Amino acid sequence: MNNTTILIGELIGTFLLVLLGDGVVANNNLKKTGMNSAGPIQITIAWGFAVLIPAFIFGEATGAHFNPALTIGLAIDGSIAVSTIPYYIIGQLVGAFLGACLVYLLYKPHFDLTNDNATIRGCFCTAPSIRNPIYNLLSEIVGTFVLVFAIKGIGQVSNIAPGVDKLLVFGIIVSIGMSLGGLTGYAINPARDFGPRLAYAVLPFNVKKDPDFGYAWIPIVGPIIGAIIAVLLYGAIF
Amino acid sequence: MNNTTILIGELIGTFLLVLLGDGVVANNNLKKTGMNSAGPIQITIAWGFAVLIPAFIFGEATGAHFNPALTIGLAIDGSIAVSTIPYYIIGQLVGAFLGACLVYLLYKPHFDLTNDNATIRGCFCTAPSIRNPIYNLLSEIVGTFVLVFAIKGIGQVSNIAPGVDKLLVFGIIVSIGMSLGGLTGYAINPARDFGPRLAYAVLPFNVKKDPDFGYAWIPIVGPIIGAIIAVLLYGAIF
Amino acid sequence: MNNTTILIGELIGTFLLVLLGDGVVANNNLKKTGMNSAGPIQITIAWGFAVLIPAFIFGEATGAHFNPALTIGLAIDGSIAVSTIPYYIIGQLVGAFLGACLVYLLYKPHFDLTNDNATIRGCFCTAPSIRNPIYNLLSEIVGTFVLVFAIKGIGQVSNIAPGVDKLLVFGIIVSIGMSLGGLTGYAINPARDFGPRLAYAVLPFNVKKDPDFGYAWIPIVGPIIGAIIAVLLYGAIF
Amino acid sequence: MNNTTILIGELIGTFLLVLLGDGVVANNNLKKTGMNSAGPIQITIAWGFAVLIPAFIFGEATGAHFNPALTIGLAIDGSIAVSTIPYYIIGQLVGAFLGACLVYLLYKPHFDLTNDNATIRGCFCTAPSIRNPIYNLLSEIVGTFVLVFAIKGIGQVSNIAPGVDKLLVFGIIVSIGMSLGGLTGYAINPARDFGPRLAYAVLPFNVKKDPDFGYAWIPIVGPIIGAIIAVLLYGAIF
Repeated sequence: MNNTTILIGELIGTFLLVLLGDGVVANNNLKKTGMNSAGPIQITIAWGFAVLIPAFIFGEATGAHFNPALTIGLAIDGSIAVSTIPYYIIGQLVGAFLGACLVYLLYKPHFDLTNDNATIRGCFCTAPSIRNPIYNLLSEIVGTFVLVFAIKGIGQVSNIAPGVDKLLVFGIIVSIGMSLGGLTGYAINPARDFGPRLAYAVLPFNVKKDPDFGYAWIPIVGPIIGAIIAVLLYGAIF
Repeated sequence: MNNTTILIGELIGTFLLVLLGDGVVANNNLKKTGMNSAGPIQITIAWGFAVLIPAFIFGEATGAHFNPALTIGLAIDGSIAVSTIPYYIIGQLVGAFLGACLVYLLYKPHFDLTNDNATIRGCFCTAPSIRNPIYNLLSEIVGTFVLVFAIKGIGQVSNIAPGVDKLLVFGIIVSIGMSLGGLTGYAINPARDFGPRLAYAVLPFNVKKDPDFGYAWIPIVGPIIGAIIAVLLYGAIF
Repeated sequence: MNNTTILIGELIGTFLLVLLGDGVVANNNLKKTGMNSAGPIQITIAWGFAVLIPAFIFGEATGAHFNPALTIGLAIDGSIAVSTIPYYIIGQLVGAFLGACLVYLLYKPHFDLTNDNATIRGCFCTAPSIRNPIYNLLSEIVGTFVLVFAIKGIGQVSNIAPGVDKLLVFGIIVSIGMSLGGLTGYAINPARDFGPRLAYAVLPFNVKKDPDFGYAWIPIVGPIIGAIIAVLLYGAIF
Repeated sequence: MNNTTILIGELIGTFLLVLLGDGVVANNNLKKTGMNSAGPIQITIAWGFAVLIPAFIFGEATGAHFNPALTIGLAIDGSIAVSTIPYYIIGQLVGAFLGACLVYLLYKPHFDLTNDNATIRGCFCTAPSIRNPIYNLLSEIVGTFVLVFAIKGIGQVSNIAPGVDKLLVFGIIVSIGMSLGGLTGYAINPARDFGPRLAYAVLPFNVKKDPDFGYAWIPIVGPIIGAIIAVLLYGAIF
């Protein structure tokens, strides 16, 4: 993998991830969409596919991180070179930002009909159901721990049929969403949260906006801590 | 693959696709079916299977396009011979038309009890949730871009266990539906929309019909544009 | 495969199929279960697993038919010896009957609280949403045609990873249920309908029973016709 | 497999299982979570993933039992050494207890807002929908019989693509939940019920607690009986 491939692959992959991931939230939340109020099962399953599809496409090209916390964890345990980190993270952030912009464009007529800022912002970035920095941080740490520990764990299974491992990635994302997602919206990925939050902040809407930047550090710091714990624990037991 | 095999395989495959795909909409929408109002999750999952099942059966015989936009995209990037295009598209259109006719026949007693034209037509072809040619076209372009880009992307994965690639096709269809389907009903396939629209136009119903042919160009042109963008981008980066 | 293996394997397999399949209907329909009114998505997915699980266990032992219509179709196209038919069908009917009896026993306290005969009978056998012999028969023919045609079609895919073919069986069952199930409850299997219907007829309930034997021929004759059409069409085109 | 590996692997695996499994119940049941009232489909699918994910990670290290009933059954049929049983079961119970403690910690602000003891306890351990020791025991016996019989059955399939067998485990768990789960909450695993019940009993809540220890023997004894019947029947027919 060379650095340009990493940058472009992570950019397009994260673009697709946020397009499909933020897309399902918009599809569910915004007024007059044909699938309004489809519910948490649709949201969690669709987020699973939002990760699975680019993971298949870019798995060989970049390792398909799409997530700075995973990138940092894999650099700490030596799976990737530290020098590649900037290419991963820049690609991820730019891709996430652009994916959110396309969701905005696609759902523009529906955003125009929606007057509630929390609903609109919720199509881009996460928010806690009960605001409490300690518990919110813990939620993001634990969710990302499960994500990274499971990805490491699946990687060590011998002889797994190629492709089936990727199906598991789908399962992990859906599982974290269904089991822990109601706490903080399971960002478990700094790029997935901050890229779209930035897009929301710069895009025009009919409502008075509040990007809630005061919360933004939690889905950045929590996932990084969770990923580091995961690779350390994994390294200790396997 | 010879041309007769392509014609027959695409015809039967698209017939099954529309039978199962339009079937779930009828099952969900029409009065007095045993699964009335099952909801968007059932519709999106069932459309995934509606593509997956004929894709398994006819994958080796024809490549299992069932979609003129995909056929055109694959001809542009040289994956299939241009001379086979008519056999693909005629098979797809005839199959889609006949599949819609069987849905009509199966659900005839339920159509007879349903008085709302939009509900009836919605069992055959797509309609936008907010009518706006530019945004509606964009929705079909983006949905089909994701479809074709992902199909190309999965095709290049080395050593994928045979069959698992097809499971991904299910995931792609469900994903596009769940994440972007509430905009225009994700035709993402000119045959899937126009064949059943024609069937609806010629079949007898108890209500005053409106085939909405003024909208019909969008799920034809949008998917073709999206597919072309997808193969060009794919060719540029892989 | 010897005849005793077929008899026992089909019996236990169909027993599991009906236990899990009728089980989900009871779980959904009966008063005071913990999952009352879970809805059509749970019913259709659970029926998929109800077929998938015994299909894995008994696939090598018997071919995992669990369905007289499939058995007859596969005998007609020469996939199994005609002399084995009775062992298949007796195993299937006895298994289905016993599976229904166990559902009765498990849900006895819930049956005791349910006063509506249609709800109770619906936990055992199928009924049309609109009673019309011609359309009801057509529904069972088409559903079983899709089932058997798809099973034949998957069987001819070369090099499919072992096990993935079985996952497709799950998809086929869920697909037929989601897309066509609201018409007649998708028996698509004479044993799955008649075995439990007989169990319902002989078991004691608190309500005045009506086994609706006048309808019972449809989920027997329809599936057999559908299976025969499927193997003939399959033989003609592959 | 040495005994330390078994102990640690089963402990961490069961910890993840209960974290994700009890997590989805809390996510669904507790006040003000972002996915409140997602419903039985989310609960049953998430429990499937809660077993699947640690099963992948620890399948080679320990066999991924996470369930004393399965461990006892596999010892009876000679699949594992009797001397390893204590390491399995201690790991399972401790893991389940700790997993429940983490669910408590994660959802603490939501538990604080929930005043109903049955709802709170339901996030930890199971309860029957209609209390009746005979029927409740039967429910746990049958559910665990299906679980263990299916696991044994999948194990004998030749040439199954590695990894696909694990996907089946997901299917089995979801199937039992969807089809039989409304009876007693499908513990089908003494550690999954008793570990969290103990955690609930010792953790502080705002409500008057009742750990319902009088019921606790049923999800211990039932699963063990069911597992023993399963391995004996399996041994008799395969």
